[in-house]
Amino acid sequence: MKVRVLVSLKPGILDPQGKAVEHGLAELGFEAAQVRIGKLIELEVSAGDAAQARAQVQAMCEKLLVNPVMEKAQVEVLG
Amino acid sequence: MKVRVLVSLKPGILDPQGKAVEHGLAELGFEAAQVRIGKLIELEVSAGDAAQARAQVQAMCEKLLVNPVMEKAQVEVLG
Repeated sequence: MKVRVLVSLKPGILDPQGKAVEHGLAELGFEAAQVRIGKLIELEVSAGDAAQARAQVQAMCEKLLVNPVMEKAQVEVLG
Repeated sequence: MKVRVLVSLKPGILDPQGKAVEHGLAELGFEAAQVRIGKLIELEVSAGDAAQARAQVQAMCEKLLVNPVMEKAQVEVLG
């Protein structure tokens, strides 16, 4: 089953990469605010159903993929 | 308007970071395959409607956010 995890910095955590992109966009004439850069993790797990897949990937997030101090994760099972 | 861009490596492009995560997961006893790491870009643009917001962010992708040789992007307007 294909699953994706959207990992983003928690509000209040500084994001220098996002700020750099925001300035780059402004220099090109674009107006964008609150640019935040996170991670997109796509993976395949073998699971009987979506709930099982989600549970597996949640466990992976807790053990390895996500730093709970700074980051939050959203797990989406694509099927 | 809040928009997010999911940037992922095109198929066939090597992803050493993904491979490292895959091995890390395996060492922890998880079974995951085809792990790919991309970028999640969240931003705010001022636009009248979703179509306008999407067009603005597509232009940002072409000019700065995405390397079209190696990456593909999916723009999602969250409203």
